[in-house]
Amino acid sequence: MKQSKQTRQQVIHYSVGTGRLGLALQEEYMRHLEQVQQEIGFTYIRGHGLFHEDIGIYQEHKTRSGCKPFYNFTYIDRIFDRFLEIKIKPFLELGFMPKSLSSSDETVFYWEGNITPPKEMSQWCQLVDATIRHFIDRYGLLEVRTWPIEVWNEPNLTNFWKDKDQQAYFELYHQTVLCIKRIDSKLMVGGPAICGGSDHWVDDFLTYVKKHDVPLDFFTRHAYTSKPPKVTFDYYYQDLEPPQDMLNQLESVRNRIDQQGFSHLPFYITEFNTSYSPINPVHDTLVNASYLAGVLAKAPQYVDGFSYWTFSDVFEEFGVPKALFHGGFGMMAFHGIRKPTYHLYRFFKQLGETILAQDDNMLVTKTEDGRITCLLWHYTDEKGEVDHLTKTVTLKEAQTDYFIQHERLTETAGNPWRTWQQLGRPRFPSKQQIDLIKKTDTPCIETEQIHGPSLSVTLSKNEVRLLTIVPITDNTDSYPGLDDRLITSY
Amino acid sequence: MKQSKQTRQQVIHYSVGTGRLGLALQEEYMRHLEQVQQEIGFTYIRGHGLFHEDIGIYQEHKTRSGCKPFYNFTYIDRIFDRFLEIKIKPFLELGFMPKSLSSSDETVFYWEGNITPPKEMSQWCQLVDATIRHFIDRYGLLEVRTWPIEVWNEPNLTNFWKDKDQQAYFELYHQTVLCIKRIDSKLMVGGPAICGGSDHWVDDFLTYVKKHDVPLDFFTRHAYTSKPPKVTFDYYYQDLEPPQDMLNQLESVRNRIDQQGFSHLPFYITEFNTSYSPINPVHDTLVNASYLAGVLAKAPQYVDGFSYWTFSDVFEEFGVPKALFHGGFGMMAFHGIRKPTYHLYRFFKQLGETILAQDDNMLVTKTEDGRITCLLWHYTDEKGEVDHLTKTVTLKEAQTDYFIQHERLTETAGNPWRTWQQLGRPRFPSKQQIDLIKKTDTPCIETEQIHGPSLSVTLSKNEVRLLTIVPITDNTDSYPGLDDRLITSY
Amino acid sequence: MKQSKQTRQQVIHYSVGTGRLGLALQEEYMRHLEQVQQEIGFTYIRGHGLFHEDIGIYQEHKTRSGCKPFYNFTYIDRIFDRFLEIKIKPFLELGFMPKSLSSSDETVFYWEGNITPPKEMSQWCQLVDATIRHFIDRYGLLEVRTWPIEVWNEPNLTNFWKDKDQQAYFELYHQTVLCIKRIDSKLMVGGPAICGGSDHWVDDFLTYVKKHDVPLDFFTRHAYTSKPPKVTFDYYYQDLEPPQDMLNQLESVRNRIDQQGFSHLPFYITEFNTSYSPINPVHDTLVNASYLAGVLAKAPQYVDGFSYWTFSDVFEEFGVPKALFHGGFGMMAFHGIRKPTYHLYRFFKQLGETILAQDDNMLVTKTEDGRITCLLWHYTDEKGEVDHLTKTVTLKEAQTDYFIQHERLTETAGNPWRTWQQLGRPRFPSKQQIDLIKKTDTPCIETEQIHGPSLSVTLSKNEVRLLTIVPITDNTDSYPGLDDRLITSY
Amino acid sequence: MKQSKQTRQQVIHYSVGTGRLGLALQEEYMRHLEQVQQEIGFTYIRGHGLFHEDIGIYQEHKTRSGCKPFYNFTYIDRIFDRFLEIKIKPFLELGFMPKSLSSSDETVFYWEGNITPPKEMSQWCQLVDATIRHFIDRYGLLEVRTWPIEVWNEPNLTNFWKDKDQQAYFELYHQTVLCIKRIDSKLMVGGPAICGGSDHWVDDFLTYVKKHDVPLDFFTRHAYTSKPPKVTFDYYYQDLEPPQDMLNQLESVRNRIDQQGFSHLPFYITEFNTSYSPINPVHDTLVNASYLAGVLAKAPQYVDGFSYWTFSDVFEEFGVPKALFHGGFGMMAFHGIRKPTYHLYRFFKQLGETILAQDDNMLVTKTEDGRITCLLWHYTDEKGEVDHLTKTVTLKEAQTDYFIQHERLTETAGNPWRTWQQLGRPRFPSKQQIDLIKKTDTPCIETEQIHGPSLSVTLSKNEVRLLTIVPITDNTDSYPGLDDRLITSY
Repeated sequence: MKQSKQTRQQVIHYSVGTGRLGLALQEEYMRHLEQVQQEIGFTYIRGHGLFHEDIGIYQEHKTRSGCKPFYNFTYIDRIFDRFLEIKIKPFLELGFMPKSLSSSDETVFYWEGNITPPKEMSQWCQLVDATIRHFIDRYGLLEVRTWPIEVWNEPNLTNFWKDKDQQAYFELYHQTVLCIKRIDSKLMVGGPAICGGSDHWVDDFLTYVKKHDVPLDFFTRHAYTSKPPKVTFDYYYQDLEPPQDMLNQLESVRNRIDQQGFSHLPFYITEFNTSYSPINPVHDTLVNASYLAGVLAKAPQYVDGFSYWTFSDVFEEFGVPKALFHGGFGMMAFHGIRKPTYHLYRFFKQLGETILAQDDNMLVTKTEDGRITCLLWHYTDEKGEVDHLTKTVTLKEAQTDYFIQHERLTETAGNPWRTWQQLGRPRFPSKQQIDLIKKTDTPCIETEQIHGPSLSVTLSKNEVRLLTIVPITDNTDSYPGLDDRLITSY
Repeated sequence: MKQSKQTRQQVIHYSVGTGRLGLALQEEYMRHLEQVQQEIGFTYIRGHGLFHEDIGIYQEHKTRSGCKPFYNFTYIDRIFDRFLEIKIKPFLELGFMPKSLSSSDETVFYWEGNITPPKEMSQWCQLVDATIRHFIDRYGLLEVRTWPIEVWNEPNLTNFWKDKDQQAYFELYHQTVLCIKRIDSKLMVGGPAICGGSDHWVDDFLTYVKKHDVPLDFFTRHAYTSKPPKVTFDYYYQDLEPPQDMLNQLESVRNRIDQQGFSHLPFYITEFNTSYSPINPVHDTLVNASYLAGVLAKAPQYVDGFSYWTFSDVFEEFGVPKALFHGGFGMMAFHGIRKPTYHLYRFFKQLGETILAQDDNMLVTKTEDGRITCLLWHYTDEKGEVDHLTKTVTLKEAQTDYFIQHERLTETAGNPWRTWQQLGRPRFPSKQQIDLIKKTDTPCIETEQIHGPSLSVTLSKNEVRLLTIVPITDNTDSYPGLDDRLITSY
Repeated sequence: MKQSKQTRQQVIHYSVGTGRLGLALQEEYMRHLEQVQQEIGFTYIRGHGLFHEDIGIYQEHKTRSGCKPFYNFTYIDRIFDRFLEIKIKPFLELGFMPKSLSSSDETVFYWEGNITPPKEMSQWCQLVDATIRHFIDRYGLLEVRTWPIEVWNEPNLTNFWKDKDQQAYFELYHQTVLCIKRIDSKLMVGGPAICGGSDHWVDDFLTYVKKHDVPLDFFTRHAYTSKPPKVTFDYYYQDLEPPQDMLNQLESVRNRIDQQGFSHLPFYITEFNTSYSPINPVHDTLVNASYLAGVLAKAPQYVDGFSYWTFSDVFEEFGVPKALFHGGFGMMAFHGIRKPTYHLYRFFKQLGETILAQDDNMLVTKTEDGRITCLLWHYTDEKGEVDHLTKTVTLKEAQTDYFIQHERLTETAGNPWRTWQQLGRPRFPSKQQIDLIKKTDTPCIETEQIHGPSLSVTLSKNEVRLLTIVPITDNTDSYPGLDDRLITSY
Repeated sequence: MKQSKQTRQQVIHYSVGTGRLGLALQEEYMRHLEQVQQEIGFTYIRGHGLFHEDIGIYQEHKTRSGCKPFYNFTYIDRIFDRFLEIKIKPFLELGFMPKSLSSSDETVFYWEGNITPPKEMSQWCQLVDATIRHFIDRYGLLEVRTWPIEVWNEPNLTNFWKDKDQQAYFELYHQTVLCIKRIDSKLMVGGPAICGGSDHWVDDFLTYVKKHDVPLDFFTRHAYTSKPPKVTFDYYYQDLEPPQDMLNQLESVRNRIDQQGFSHLPFYITEFNTSYSPINPVHDTLVNASYLAGVLAKAPQYVDGFSYWTFSDVFEEFGVPKALFHGGFGMMAFHGIRKPTYHLYRFFKQLGETILAQDDNMLVTKTEDGRITCLLWHYTDEKGEVDHLTKTVTLKEAQTDYFIQHERLTETAGNPWRTWQQLGRPRFPSKQQIDLIKKTDTPCIETEQIHGPSLSVTLSKNEVRLLTIVPITDNTDSYPGLDDRLITSY
């Protein structure tokens, strides 16, 4: 069980992922993020590539006294200024290695992030030191103390850390945290940012930390639940483990952390999603949302923060995306088109902290301003037609009249991917086609007035639905002379 | 039959009405008008009260040489500057009488527009002369020549013109047009702005004009089709004549004009609606839209321009409106809430000039960019349940695949009036209630892909629906490795 | 001496005046207020006419059970919603009398505010009760408790209160405060909103309050310092008492309040300006700003809040203004043109709470973020040429290099009134003329780098100047190869 | 002499340069371009890198039938959609070579544009064909016919075209133009985009074109006038040839074109500036503007279009810029700071087509709306103090009263580079510093009213000044009772 005082909402909207940070220079990216912040609102944003060449922090400078490191903050300032302007804070991930500091040539992704240890640890530490000090200069120490600093990404994979060399990673973590704490002991540093499947790293890392008395302010891990892929030319297809599988992963890691004596440590899932592939069409579908509904509803009891990977299809790990819908991670597709998972997060934002009822398909809450908000979902991995699911929401309030607003995501509503299919899957849709698709990125809204203490709701396959329930007073009698029956045809 | 070269679209979106012009100083009014111009786009706007005290053009000025007329254009400039900024032109209605120039005290409306002839015709003419010259100074002669100038409003009613004195009106028209033509002979002047029920004025007015050789550039009349009201405390309720009744009125007046030898004259309906009362709830309903669909679809063959009375519920003829929904004329209710009639006009804007098919419930057109747009409606004045109406749209194009977008206005979709009822009819809704209502001021969108040459559509009672039909090419085969069946649960 | 804990800044930017509240429905008004809030930022806004017919709260309603009061909040909700949206709160002034509740016909102003006592006190109290309860319903009790509620306006003048009947006012105050405290005892009520020249009212009112044990949460008075007018046809011209005269007024009233045993009471100046006339050209000039600089700099020691009368020339007490510049009270003229007094307030907003130096022409402060900001002014009432004034600002910081930004308001800079004169004083300026005038509503900016501990500044006649002083570090040496002398012509 | 019908204004604002097109994905870039379009307004934009990897048009696709070219228009559509949205059209430059199509590894710039001929001409032609056809599909043939298509960039330099191989370029041009004309014969194709210093290419290219009967719709060349550089660590410093030198270059090339029998051909300068280096501080200075004033004022008689290189410092040829001011080409520095050259272009936009007077330091014009606009400049390459220059502007109009607005760029006004120096040249300025700098990116405005037929203006060293001169009528006498002398202290 998690130990921190993060509320449910804070855990769910803790952070959101982005491809590499350099993409944040782009206009399309920033428009998406602005809309996400307005309609959802995350606290942090985490992405790769802080030290990558496209941001270009590490450079060398010829001067009269020879060649010296030169730290260029032109681009990272532009990015972080904008983040803070739209009220999202950086969750720093230190990596990958600047080419000039790298010990070897191995890279990951289309954009070639160097995944090797530094050729000289002291040069790396100088880079980290100069960068963090610059952030403090520009944004103030009080601000930077609120930015978690994570060392590297998935060192347990050869793709991301040369030879997945555990000792080399521990050494990197060790030197990095020491260097940061020398600047200010209240800066928060954590790791090891491992992905699932190597949880012995949890014990190994915590043992190392204890043994060497290394500071550690939070623990991070990633979580995906897709089974092995069927790879076709341009796509990955994967079935998914049940949602409970992800919950089990989280609980198990939390337990390991506690057992190592770190029950005080916050535990952040700094990446998660159904599939870990940016060309898996599941991300564009309704099933992605209905699957994650069940995860997000229950996970706050195990972890202190999630970071959905990623908020936008502006993403280049496999190169420039080849079509409007291409299986990208984004909650939001190009042209600001909102996928079902975007709305799932938007729905969660409407929930209150007080839980009135909860089961595997429903979460009923009360908000501070007196609304009842209720999320329902009907996830299934069965193919073909599936029975509808009927749920009953009990309204315990004394009032007998309620206004109910239903926001429904179904195969035919709030499903722009389907509209795109109906338009013949245009790769590079025209303005007219984009307009037609965008018109369908909104849930279907239905409203009603009910009398009585409960409400029955029927969900179609994979439907995700938000109810907003407001007790009302009927003022009809206060209108002198009002009589709708006198209107033509009423 | 109309003689001018106005296209169908130009006739339908010729003009829109507004209460009194002074309301155009208000922010809520201007927000509504901006949205109307963006989503619909009218050419002109016509309203009462150009010379009313709240705009204050006519004033008197004490100077060393005594008291002189002083024309204050501070407010009218502000209003017309904004109109032109958002690309709508004034359709000038000269009236009512400034208090200091009036011959008597009779007024109309809560805001007390003086409805009497000038005490001195020369002072009236000086006012008109100074005003028109100021407009020319400020906006240029070429611009002002495009503004129709109508003399007074509904002089055939005692409410609007003292004793509905025909000779006094003819004299007013006569002197006014002479005064304007002295400024520039190409300025366009017209009248008599009568309402229905006194069509002998058509002959009388045209006879006068011929006999005295008075210039006349266009003929204007109003049209409403409500039967006698049932008046309750705060409401008027009226049944409606069939839509054909309004078409008959238009044809009949056009015939009278032609028979008087004025077949070259444009004929404008400078006010029209179902009911002429600003407290008739029909204006808030779907039936208002489905009724007018049938009128607007056919009327362009008889008239040269319509002016829907009015674009917004920001309106004060009966005082400050007493509730969000109160039966106001507006296409748009307070807080920018769009009523069904708003969408009807928006739908008409999507139609093309080429008519592919037309009957009493349907208008199928082709647009310049190759879309087929089709408006369907199912108006009925029967009370209670009514059979659905099924229509077939034939698509003659060679292509066999089409994308269809349905935008539907029904009792349960695009009907914010109903949501307001479900919320208990709050008079002064809270922010939360406004948000809930606004979410339902949008038609329901449905999309599909069809194969084949025709499409069958079923309309519910009073439904109004726009179809956007786009021929498509299916690109599915151009995606290597694409196979939706491999997605979980698909 | 004032007793409250309002900071200097809070006192100076406590509130701003507006003509009558009904004008807040206008777009031009709201644009001005939005800009004022962005660039200056006041806490409250206070204006007349809450109960006037143009807002129309008090109405009567015919129903089956006869005629009943009906309180229409349609317009006041629209106004207060917008105020709160742009982060300004209402400072409520209860008045004037709705026509239907008035005891007599006397009115004030072009817009005819009824200035008579209620014909039935109970009806007035019901109106106040319904209105305050509605505000609590809509905005919450916690919010409304922060809105000061002032009873009536300038009852010591026959223009504003029939026969300036003191006993009648005390009775009105008494009944009103009781009615409000019955709703909630923490609502803040005050008065008597008298203008200068009748300060015996201070004693009379406080004596009454003590004697009858009437609640009183704050004391209010107005302050103008113009001498008797020379009235010409369209203008009032007045010389001004020295700025010290206004300070003396404030001190004297504060002393009276204290002597009556109310030293705990906040004391608000709910209207002030140089001249009390809306057609006195002094308001358009630089001298208005340089005069008020001296008042605002010192007054925070005597009072708890000021309310400059008024923020905008959108104002109608003497009718629709007859020209762009007409002597209106506004900080801002039509078309958003900023007068010198606007910038004076903007300059004050830049000052810090820590005072480093102060005299009759200068106020030097330190802000929380380390800037030194310094306001200088050279007010004189002498006609013709006047000697420049040289002031020395001492910079006590250890740093020896400073960047200085001067923002200067002089007869030739930041003086749109003068540009308007140069354009020939167009009454209703064209778009081109407005653009030319608007380009000059900005202070002249000059910058420099200085070395050393002090700075000498020379002010022209009536100049108002803001200095922003920032300690700097010179990085020139950190640029390898930089040498400006190698640039062509440098 | 140029032959086309481009007006002076069309020539001057024909086009603007941008670094590589891929930068147009960035938000900072697009903000700058939006402001440029609002305040200046160019017809075209031209940049390198249409086929570079960061836009990624050319890709290869694995399918069942093997590897095939795949043209990815995701990014270029995003870029061109935005260009057209803000009303600027692409001036297409075909190049550089996609890596997979290149015959060798040579690249230019930090971003590594491949400068070699295609390994297979047919693959290049397929790429060009697919790209142009896609643009026609998306934007319409009529639109794309208005986009000039230039083949490659500066093939006369080894940096830009391997071995500056003339025959290889002529072959590339030949095959490319044939391929394009096969799509549509009215598409406009031109070249050879040479820079100065190799004008024998003019004759060689035109001879080739004539001999092989190759279509050629326009001729392009670049023009810079800097002398050999003094290179320091991070900067290039160069003196400039006199402005007349550039005019001579243009005239000489135009003559060569005419002599070759191509007098009908439009002649575009598709890049020009003072220095060709992106780290030459002259670009940040006033002297850059005063120098180019003299060029732009006279050049329209020789050429049909200019393209200033470049509109923004968002530019990466030498890597990520290392400081706010770094000698970049941009009219606009980071954070939207406008350099003097930006205003020079803005001033030119205010000029009319009718020239009233012109000499080496002045251009007086009349605009269509009756203003006289006059540009004055005082360029000198002398170091140190220089005499002021006094010019007389004669106003031949009958009116004797004029309003004059001066917009002045001097060393102390409209010179943000100097403010940055005064702030100690912060590399990565803070928000506060940026605000202080931005406040000084505006010319000093002065206004006056003059009587009489001429005006004398004195210019400081390198000053650039725009006068806006408007004949006026004085209305002072129309204000009853107005007397400024009655205002305090006037």
